Amino acid sequence: MSVILYDLAGADPARRFSPYSWRIRKALARKGLEVEARPWRFTEKDKIGFSGQGLVPVIVDGSRTVSDSWEIARYLEAAYPDRPSLFGGAVTPIRFIAGWADKVLHPGIGRMIIADILAVLADKDRAYFRESREKRFGMTLEAAQADRDQRLPAFRQSLEPVRVVLSGSPFLGGETPGYADYAVFGAFQWARCTSPFKLLADDDPIAAWQRRLRALFGGLADGVPAFD
Amino acid sequence: MSVILYDLAGADPARRFSPYSWRIRKALARKGLEVEARPWRFTEKDKIGFSGQGLVPVIVDGSRTVSDSWEIARYLEAAYPDRPSLFGGAVTPIRFIAGWADKVLHPGIGRMIIADILAVLADKDRAYFRESREKRFGMTLEAAQADRDQRLPAFRQSLEPVRVVLSGSPFLGGETPGYADYAVFGAFQWARCTSPFKLLADDDPIAAWQRRLRALFGGLADGVPAFD
Repeated sequence: MSVILYDLAGADPARRFSPYSWRIRKALARKGLEVEARPWRFTEKDKIGFSGQGLVPVIVDGSRTVSDSWEIARYLEAAYPDRPSLFGGAVTPIRFIAGWADKVLHPGIGRMIIADILAVLADKDRAYFRESREKRFGMTLEAAQADRDQRLPAFRQSLEPVRVVLSGSPFLGGETPGYADYAVFGAFQWARCTSPFKLLADDDPIAAWQRRLRALFGGLADGVPAFD
Repeated sequence: MSVILYDLAGADPARRFSPYSWRIRKALARKGLEVEARPWRFTEKDKIGFSGQGLVPVIVDGSRTVSDSWEIARYLEAAYPDRPSLFGGAVTPIRFIAGWADKVLHPGIGRMIIADILAVLADKDRAYFRESREKRFGMTLEAAQADRDQRLPAFRQSLEPVRVVLSGSPFLGGETPGYADYAVFGAFQWARCTSPFKLLADDDPIAAWQRRLRALFGGLADGVPAFD
Protein backbone atom coordinates (compact mmCIF):
# COMPACT_ATOMS: atom_id res chain seq x y z
CA MET A 1 0.00 0.00 0.00
CA SER A 2 1.41 3.38 -0.99
CA VAL A 3 1.90 6.27 1.37
CA ILE A 4 -0.30 9.14 0.18
CA LEU A 5 1.43 12.51 0.12
CA TYR A 6 -0.50 15.73 -0.41
CA ASP A 7 1.97 17.77 -2.40
CA LEU A 8 1.78 21.41 -3.45
CA ALA A 9 1.42 21.82 -7.23
CA GLY A 10 1.26 24.72 -9.68
CA ALA A 11 -0.94 25.29 -12.73
CA ASP A 12 0.92 22.32 -14.19
CA PRO A 13 0.04 19.51 -11.80
CA ALA A 14 3.52 18.03 -12.36
CA ARG A 15 5.18 21.20 -11.01
CA ARG A 16 5.79 20.32 -7.35
CA PHE A 17 7.52 23.16 -5.56
CA SER A 18 6.98 23.03 -1.80
CA PRO A 19 10.38 23.02 -0.04
CA TYR A 20 8.85 21.09 2.84
CA SER A 21 7.27 18.50 0.56
CA TRP A 22 10.63 17.96 -1.15
CA ARG A 23 12.13 17.08 2.22
CA ILE A 24 9.46 14.43 2.59
CA ARG A 25 9.68 13.16 -0.99
CA LYS A 26 13.34 12.46 -0.30
CA ALA A 27 12.66 10.98 3.12
CA LEU A 28 10.02 8.61 1.76
CA ALA A 29 12.40 7.54 -1.01
CA ARG A 30 15.18 6.97 1.52
CA LYS A 31 12.83 4.72 3.46
CA GLY A 32 12.05 2.85 0.25
CA LEU A 33 8.33 3.53 0.52
CA GLU A 34 5.97 3.66 -2.44
CA VAL A 35 4.35 7.07 -2.72
CA GLU A 36 1.22 8.44 -4.32
CA ALA A 37 1.98 12.17 -4.43
CA ARG A 38 -1.36 13.87 -5.00
CA PRO A 39 -1.31 17.40 -6.40
CA TRP A 40 -2.79 19.95 -4.04
CA ARG A 41 -3.36 23.69 -4.34
CA PHE A 42 -3.16 26.36 -1.65
CA THR A 43 -6.90 27.01 -1.76
CA GLU A 44 -7.92 23.34 -1.42
CA LYS A 45 -7.97 23.50 2.37
CA ASP A 46 -11.01 21.19 2.42
CA LYS A 47 -9.02 18.34 0.83
CA ILE A 48 -6.64 18.16 3.80
CA GLY A 49 -9.11 19.22 6.48
CA PHE A 50 -9.01 15.66 7.82
CA SER A 51 -5.46 16.38 9.03
CA GLY A 52 -6.71 19.06 11.40
CA GLN A 53 -4.75 21.87 9.75
CA GLY A 54 -4.32 23.55 6.37
CA LEU A 55 -0.74 23.09 5.14
CA VAL A 56 1.13 20.45 3.16
CA PRO A 57 2.95 18.15 3.35
CA VAL A 58 0.41 15.77 4.83
CA ILE A 59 0.94 12.04 4.64
CA VAL A 60 -1.52 9.20 5.08
CA ASP A 61 0.19 5.91 5.88
CA GLY A 62 -2.50 3.28 6.36
CA SER A 63 -4.52 4.49 9.31
CA ARG A 64 -2.03 7.23 10.29
CA THR A 65 -2.26 10.85 9.19
CA VAL A 66 0.74 13.10 9.93
CA SER A 67 1.32 16.76 9.01
CA ASP A 68 4.32 19.10 9.40
CA SER A 69 7.51 18.03 7.66
CA TRP A 70 9.52 17.59 10.86
CA GLU A 71 6.78 15.51 12.47
CA ILE A 72 6.50 13.41 9.33
CA ALA A 73 10.25 12.76 9.30
CA ARG A 74 10.18 11.78 12.98
CA TYR A 75 7.20 9.53 12.30
CA LEU A 76 8.90 7.78 9.37
CA GLU A 77 12.07 7.21 11.38
CA ALA A 78 10.08 5.68 14.24
CA ALA A 79 7.68 3.67 12.08
CA TYR A 80 10.39 2.22 9.79
CA PRO A 81 13.41 1.75 12.05
CA ASP A 82 14.80 -1.12 9.97
CA ARG A 83 14.95 0.97 6.79
CA PRO A 84 17.88 3.34 6.10
CA SER A 85 18.03 6.08 8.71
CA LEU A 86 17.09 9.71 8.08
CA PHE A 87 18.90 11.11 11.10
CA GLY A 88 21.75 8.68 11.72
CA GLY A 89 21.16 9.07 15.46
CA ALA A 90 21.69 12.86 15.37
CA VAL A 91 18.19 14.21 15.79
CA THR A 92 18.77 17.60 17.42
CA PRO A 93 21.80 18.70 15.35
CA ILE A 94 19.70 17.96 12.25
CA ARG A 95 16.82 19.88 13.80
CA PHE A 96 19.20 22.84 13.93
CA ILE A 97 19.95 22.52 10.22
CA ALA A 98 16.25 22.20 9.33
CA GLY A 99 15.54 25.20 11.57
CA TRP A 100 18.28 27.16 9.81
CA ALA A 101 16.64 26.31 6.48
CA ASP A 102 13.24 27.43 7.83
CA LYS A 103 14.40 30.65 9.47
CA VAL A 104 17.31 31.82 7.34
CA LEU A 105 17.34 30.07 3.97
CA HIS A 106 13.62 30.24 3.16
CA PRO A 107 13.22 33.94 3.98
CA GLY A 108 16.40 34.70 2.06
CA ILE A 109 15.31 32.81 -1.05
CA GLY A 110 11.69 33.95 -0.73
CA ARG A 111 12.65 37.58 -1.14
CA MET A 112 14.28 36.73 -4.47
CA ILE A 113 11.59 34.53 -6.07
CA ILE A 114 8.24 35.45 -4.54
CA ALA A 115 6.76 37.20 -7.59
CA ASP A 116 8.06 34.46 -9.87
CA ILE A 117 6.16 31.87 -7.84
CA LEU A 118 2.91 33.69 -8.59
CA ALA A 119 3.42 33.07 -12.30
CA VAL A 120 3.51 29.27 -11.97
CA LEU A 121 0.47 28.94 -9.70
CA ALA A 122 -2.92 27.59 -10.67
CA ASP A 123 -5.29 30.48 -11.46
CA LYS A 124 -7.45 29.75 -8.47
CA ASP A 125 -4.48 30.10 -6.06
CA ARG A 126 -3.22 33.47 -7.25
CA ALA A 127 -5.43 35.85 -5.26
CA TYR A 128 -4.85 33.85 -2.07
CA PHE A 129 -1.12 33.75 -2.60
CA ARG A 130 -0.79 37.44 -3.41
CA GLU A 131 -2.90 38.57 -0.48
CA SER A 132 -1.35 36.28 2.16
CA ARG A 133 2.25 36.90 1.07
CA GLU A 134 1.86 40.65 0.56
CA LYS A 135 0.49 40.85 4.08
CA ARG A 136 3.55 38.93 5.33
CA PHE A 137 6.04 41.14 3.48
CA GLY A 138 4.14 44.40 3.96
CA MET A 139 4.58 45.22 0.26
CA THR A 140 3.68 43.92 -3.19
CA LEU A 141 5.31 40.70 -4.38
CA GLU A 142 6.94 42.65 -7.18
CA ALA A 143 8.42 45.16 -4.72
CA ALA A 144 9.63 42.38 -2.40
CA GLN A 145 11.58 40.81 -5.24
CA ALA A 146 12.72 44.02 -6.95
CA ASP A 147 16.07 44.37 -5.17
CA ARG A 148 17.15 40.76 -5.49
CA ASP A 149 20.34 41.56 -7.34
CA GLN A 150 21.40 43.68 -4.37
CA ARG A 151 20.40 40.96 -1.92
CA LEU A 152 22.30 38.21 -3.70
CA PRO A 153 25.80 38.77 -2.22
CA ALA A 154 24.53 38.68 1.39
CA PHE A 155 22.41 35.64 0.59
CA ARG A 156 25.38 33.78 -0.86
CA GLN A 157 27.43 34.76 2.18
CA SER A 158 24.71 33.36 4.48
CA LEU A 159 25.35 29.90 2.97
CA GLU A 160 28.86 29.69 4.42
CA PRO A 161 27.97 27.02 7.02
CA VAL A 162 26.97 24.68 4.17
CA ARG A 163 30.28 25.28 2.43
CA VAL A 164 32.18 24.57 5.65
CA VAL A 165 30.72 21.07 5.70
CA LEU A 166 31.05 20.47 1.96
CA SER A 167 34.74 21.41 2.08
CA GLY A 168 35.31 18.10 3.89
CA SER A 169 32.34 15.86 3.05
CA PRO A 170 30.18 15.12 0.02
CA PHE A 171 26.95 15.52 2.00
CA LEU A 172 25.71 17.34 5.10
CA GLY A 173 25.02 13.85 6.46
CA GLY A 174 28.65 12.84 5.82
CA GLU A 175 29.43 10.14 3.28
CA THR A 176 25.71 9.42 2.87
CA PRO A 177 22.94 12.00 2.37
CA GLY A 178 20.24 12.20 5.00
CA TYR A 179 17.59 14.51 6.37
CA ALA A 180 20.07 17.37 6.91
CA ASP A 181 20.68 17.32 3.17
CA TYR A 182 17.00 17.03 2.29
CA ALA A 183 16.09 19.99 4.50
CA VAL A 184 18.52 22.31 2.76
CA PHE A 185 17.99 20.77 -0.66
CA GLY A 186 14.23 21.47 -0.49
CA ALA A 187 14.84 25.20 -0.39
CA PHE A 188 16.89 25.19 -3.58
CA GLN A 189 14.49 22.84 -5.32
CA TRP A 190 11.63 25.20 -4.41
CA ALA A 191 13.48 28.01 -6.18
CA ARG A 192 14.47 25.87 -9.14
CA CYS A 193 10.87 24.78 -9.74
CA THR A 194 9.45 28.31 -9.59
CA SER A 195 11.99 30.88 -10.74
CA PRO A 196 14.66 31.40 -13.40
CA PHE A 197 16.67 33.55 -10.98
CA LYS A 198 20.19 32.22 -10.53
CA LEU A 199 20.85 31.82 -6.80
CA LEU A 200 24.31 30.26 -6.96
CA ALA A 201 27.48 30.89 -8.91
CA ASP A 202 28.36 28.01 -11.23
CA ASP A 203 31.51 27.20 -9.29
CA ASP A 204 29.81 27.21 -5.88
CA PRO A 205 30.28 23.80 -4.25
CA ILE A 206 26.65 24.05 -3.18
CA ALA A 207 25.61 23.92 -6.85
CA ALA A 208 27.47 20.65 -7.36
CA TRP A 209 26.01 19.27 -4.12
CA GLN A 210 22.50 20.16 -5.35
CA ARG A 211 23.10 18.21 -8.52
CA ARG A 212 24.18 15.21 -6.45
CA LEU A 213 21.01 15.51 -4.39
CA ARG A 214 18.79 15.80 -7.45
CA ALA A 215 20.26 12.63 -8.92
CA LEU A 216 19.40 10.49 -5.87
CA PHE A 217 16.68 7.85 -6.08
CA GLY A 218 16.75 7.56 -9.86
CA GLY A 219 16.68 11.30 -10.48
CA LEU A 220 13.48 11.81 -8.50
CA ALA A 221 14.06 15.56 -8.24
CA ASP A 222 15.45 16.01 -11.75
CA GLY A 223 12.49 14.91 -13.83
CA VAL A 224 10.09 17.68 -12.86
CA PRO A 225 9.11 21.00 -14.46
CA ALA A 226 11.84 23.45 -13.46
CA PHE A 227 13.93 26.38 -14.68
CA ASP A 228 17.46 25.23 -15.42
CA MET B 1 49.62 13.38 32.89
CA SER B 2 47.64 16.51 32.13
CA VAL B 3 46.78 17.72 28.67
CA ILE B 4 48.42 21.12 28.18
CA LEU B 5 46.14 23.73 26.62
CA TYR B 6 47.48 27.06 25.38
CA ASP B 7 44.61 29.37 26.19
CA LEU B 8 44.14 33.04 25.28
CA ALA B 9 44.24 35.32 28.33
CA GLY B 10 43.81 39.03 28.99
CA ALA B 11 45.74 41.40 31.25
CA ASP B 12 44.33 39.31 34.08
CA PRO B 13 45.80 35.86 33.38
CA ALA B 14 42.59 34.32 34.74
CA ARG B 15 40.47 36.05 32.06
CA ARG B 16 40.20 33.37 29.38
CA PHE B 17 38.11 34.59 26.49
CA SER B 18 38.83 32.70 23.27
CA PRO B 19 35.56 31.24 21.91
CA TYR B 20 37.53 28.42 20.30
CA SER B 21 39.41 27.62 23.50
CA TRP B 22 36.11 27.44 25.40
CA ARG B 23 34.94 24.76 22.99
CA ILE B 24 38.04 22.78 23.87
CA ARG B 25 37.86 23.45 27.62
CA LYS B 26 34.40 21.90 27.53
CA ALA B 27 35.47 19.05 25.27
CA LEU B 28 38.41 18.16 27.53
CA ALA B 29 36.11 18.21 30.57
CA ARG B 30 33.59 16.01 28.77
CA LYS B 31 36.37 13.52 28.12
CA GLY B 32 37.32 13.66 31.79
CA LEU B 33 40.88 14.74 31.05
CA GLU B 34 43.03 16.72 33.46
CA VAL B 35 44.06 20.02 31.92
CA GLU B 36 46.83 22.51 32.48
CA ALA B 37 45.45 25.61 30.75
CA ARG B 38 48.42 27.90 30.24
CA PRO B 39 47.72 31.59 29.70
CA TRP B 40 48.86 32.84 26.32
CA ARG B 41 48.77 36.27 24.69
CA PHE B 42 48.25 37.16 21.02
CA THR B 43 51.82 38.39 20.65
CA GLU B 44 53.44 35.29 22.12
CA LYS B 45 53.65 33.53 18.76
CA ASP B 46 57.02 32.04 19.74
CA LYS B 47 55.47 30.09 22.62
CA ILE B 48 53.29 28.03 20.25
CA GLY B 49 55.66 28.03 17.30
CA PHE B 50 56.23 24.31 17.92
CA SER B 51 52.66 23.73 16.66
CA GLY B 52 53.55 25.04 13.21
CA GLN B 53 51.07 27.93 13.33
CA GLY B 54 50.23 30.96 15.44
CA LEU B 55 46.72 30.59 16.89
CA VAL B 56 45.25 29.02 20.00
CA PRO B 57 43.84 26.66 21.07
CA VAL B 58 46.81 24.32 20.87
CA ILE B 59 46.91 21.14 22.93
CA VAL B 60 49.81 18.93 23.85
CA ASP B 61 48.72 15.45 24.86
CA GLY B 62 51.82 13.42 25.65
CA SER B 63 53.74 13.30 22.40
CA ARG B 64 50.90 14.74 20.30
CA THR B 65 50.46 18.41 19.43
CA VAL B 66 47.17 19.45 17.82
CA SER B 67 45.93 22.92 16.81
CA ASP B 68 42.60 24.22 15.42
CA SER B 69 39.55 23.62 17.60
CA TRP B 70 37.81 21.32 15.13
CA GLU B 71 40.93 19.22 14.66
CA ILE B 72 41.42 19.05 18.42
CA ALA B 73 37.84 17.88 18.93
CA ARG B 74 38.24 15.22 16.23
CA TYR B 75 41.52 14.15 17.81
CA LEU B 76 39.99 13.83 21.29
CA GLU B 77 37.06 11.81 19.98
CA ALA B 78 39.40 9.42 18.17
CA ALA B 79 42.00 9.19 20.94
CA TYR B 80 39.48 8.65 23.75
CA PRO B 81 36.69 6.60 22.18
CA ASP B 82 35.71 4.98 25.48
CA ARG B 83 35.07 8.33 27.19
CA PRO B 84 31.75 10.18 26.75
CA SER B 85 31.27 11.18 23.13
CA LEU B 86 31.56 14.74 21.82
CA PHE B 87 29.67 14.11 18.59
CA GLY B 88 27.29 11.28 19.37
CA GLY B 89 27.97 9.84 15.93
CA ALA B 90 26.84 13.04 14.16
CA VAL B 91 30.08 14.54 12.95
CA THR B 92 29.02 16.49 9.86
CA PRO B 93 25.76 17.97 11.25
CA ILE B 94 27.80 19.23 14.21
CA ARG B 95 30.39 20.56 11.77
CA PHE B 96 27.55 22.62 10.28
CA ILE B 97 26.70 24.08 13.70
CA ALA B 98 30.35 24.88 14.46
CA GLY B 99 30.63 26.44 11.00
CA TRP B 100 27.53 28.51 11.67
CA ALA B 101 29.14 29.73 14.90
CA ASP B 102 32.36 30.57 13.02
CA LYS B 103 30.77 32.30 10.05
CA VAL B 104 27.60 33.88 11.45
CA LEU B 105 27.71 34.06 15.23
CA HIS B 106 31.30 35.24 15.67
CA PRO B 107 31.11 38.05 13.10
CA GLY B 108 27.75 39.12 14.54
CA ILE B 109 29.02 39.25 18.12
CA GLY B 110 32.39 40.65 17.11
CA ARG B 111 30.83 43.80 15.70
CA MET B 112 29.22 44.47 19.08
CA ILE B 113 32.18 43.85 21.43
CA ILE B 114 35.39 44.41 19.51
CA ALA B 115 36.40 47.68 21.20
CA ASP B 116 35.48 46.27 24.61
CA ILE B 117 37.88 43.37 24.05
CA LEU B 118 40.74 45.85 23.66
CA ALA B 119 40.16 47.07 27.20
CA VAL B 120 40.74 43.66 28.82
CA LEU B 121 43.88 42.77 26.87
CA ALA B 122 47.41 42.68 28.22
CA ASP B 123 49.19 45.91 27.37
CA LYS B 124 51.60 44.18 25.05
CA ASP B 125 48.73 42.78 22.94
CA ARG B 126 46.86 46.03 22.32
CA ALA B 127 48.73 47.42 19.33
CA TYR B 128 48.66 44.04 17.57
CA PHE B 129 44.97 43.58 18.25
CA ARG B 130 43.99 47.07 17.13
CA GLU B 131 46.02 46.92 13.95
CA SER B 132 44.99 43.41 12.87
CA ARG B 133 41.28 43.88 13.64
CA GLU B 134 41.01 47.37 12.21
CA LYS B 135 42.50 46.01 9.01
CA ARG B 136 39.87 43.25 9.01
CA PHE B 137 36.96 45.64 9.62
CA GLY B 138 38.30 48.48 7.52
CA MET B 139 37.57 50.95 10.31
CA THR B 140 38.52 51.73 13.91
CA LEU B 141 37.39 49.29 16.60
CA GLU B 142 35.32 52.07 18.13
CA ALA B 143 33.57 52.75 14.82
CA ALA B 144 32.94 49.02 14.25
CA GLN B 145 31.16 48.76 17.57
CA ALA B 146 29.42 52.16 17.52
CA ASP B 147 26.14 51.02 15.96
CA ARG B 148 25.67 47.93 18.09
CA ASP B 149 22.30 48.98 19.43
CA GLN B 150 21.04 49.14 15.86
CA ARG B 151 22.59 45.76 15.05
CA LEU B 152 21.10 43.99 18.03
CA PRO B 153 17.63 43.13 16.65
CA ALA B 154 19.04 41.47 13.51
CA PHE B 155 21.62 39.65 15.62
CA ARG B 156 18.95 38.27 17.93
CA GLN B 157 16.89 37.25 14.90
CA SER B 158 19.91 35.37 13.51
CA LEU B 159 19.80 33.08 16.54
CA GLU B 160 16.45 31.56 15.56
CA PRO B 161 17.90 28.15 14.60
CA VAL B 162 19.14 27.76 18.18
CA ARG B 163 15.70 28.57 19.54
CA VAL B 164 14.10 26.05 17.20
CA VAL B 165 16.13 23.29 18.84
CA LEU B 166 15.73 24.59 22.39
CA SER B 167 11.95 24.69 21.98
CA GLY B 168 12.02 20.89 22.09
CA SER B 169 15.29 19.90 23.80
CA PRO B 170 17.40 21.16 26.70
CA PHE B 171 20.61 21.06 24.63
CA LEU B 172 21.67 21.26 20.99
CA GLY B 173 22.98 17.74 21.54
CA GLY B 174 19.54 16.60 22.75
CA GLU B 175 19.12 15.43 26.33
CA THR B 176 22.88 15.64 26.87
CA PRO B 177 25.15 18.54 25.89
CA GLY B 178 27.89 17.86 23.37
CA TYR B 179 30.18 19.60 20.93
CA ALA B 180 27.29 21.33 19.16
CA ASP B 181 26.52 23.06 22.44
CA TYR B 182 30.15 23.87 23.17
CA ALA B 183 30.66 25.44 19.73
CA VAL B 184 27.79 27.88 20.21
CA PHE B 185 28.43 28.37 23.91
CA GLY B 186 32.00 29.50 23.25
CA ALA B 187 30.79 32.53 21.32
CA PHE B 188 28.63 33.78 24.17
CA GLN B 189 31.32 33.04 26.73
CA TRP B 190 33.77 35.08 24.65
CA ALA B 191 31.38 38.04 24.87
CA ARG B 192 30.64 37.52 28.55
CA CYS B 193 34.34 37.51 29.45
CA THR B 194 35.17 40.66 27.50
CA SER B 195 32.16 43.00 27.33
CA PRO B 196 29.34 44.33 29.50
CA PHE B 197 27.10 44.61 26.40
CA LYS B 198 23.88 42.65 26.83
CA LEU B 199 23.48 40.35 23.85
CA LEU B 200 20.32 38.51 24.91
CA ALA B 201 17.00 39.48 26.45
CA ASP B 202 16.50 38.05 29.93
CA ASP B 203 13.63 35.85 28.80
CA ASP B 204 15.47 34.46 25.77
CA PRO B 205 15.65 30.65 26.08
CA ILE B 206 19.24 30.95 24.85
CA ALA B 207 20.11 32.84 28.04
CA ALA B 208 18.79 29.99 30.20
CA TRP B 209 20.62 27.45 28.02
CA GLN B 210 23.86 29.43 28.48
CA ARG B 211 23.45 29.26 32.23
CA ARG B 212 22.99 25.48 31.98
CA LEU B 213 26.15 25.24 29.90
CA ARG B 214 28.16 27.39 32.30
CA ALA B 215 27.17 25.17 35.23
CA LEU B 216 28.52 21.97 33.62
CA PHE B 217 31.64 20.29 34.98
CA GLY B 218 31.43 21.92 38.37
CA GLY B 219 30.85 25.42 37.07
CA LEU B 220 34.01 25.40 34.95
CA ALA B 221 32.80 28.37 32.89
CA ASP B 222 31.22 30.27 35.77
CA GLY B 223 34.22 30.88 37.99
CA VAL B 224 36.16 33.15 35.65
CA PRO B 225 36.50 36.93 35.33
CA ALA B 226 33.43 38.06 33.37
CA PHE B 227 30.83 40.80 33.03
CA ASP B 228 27.49 39.60 34.40
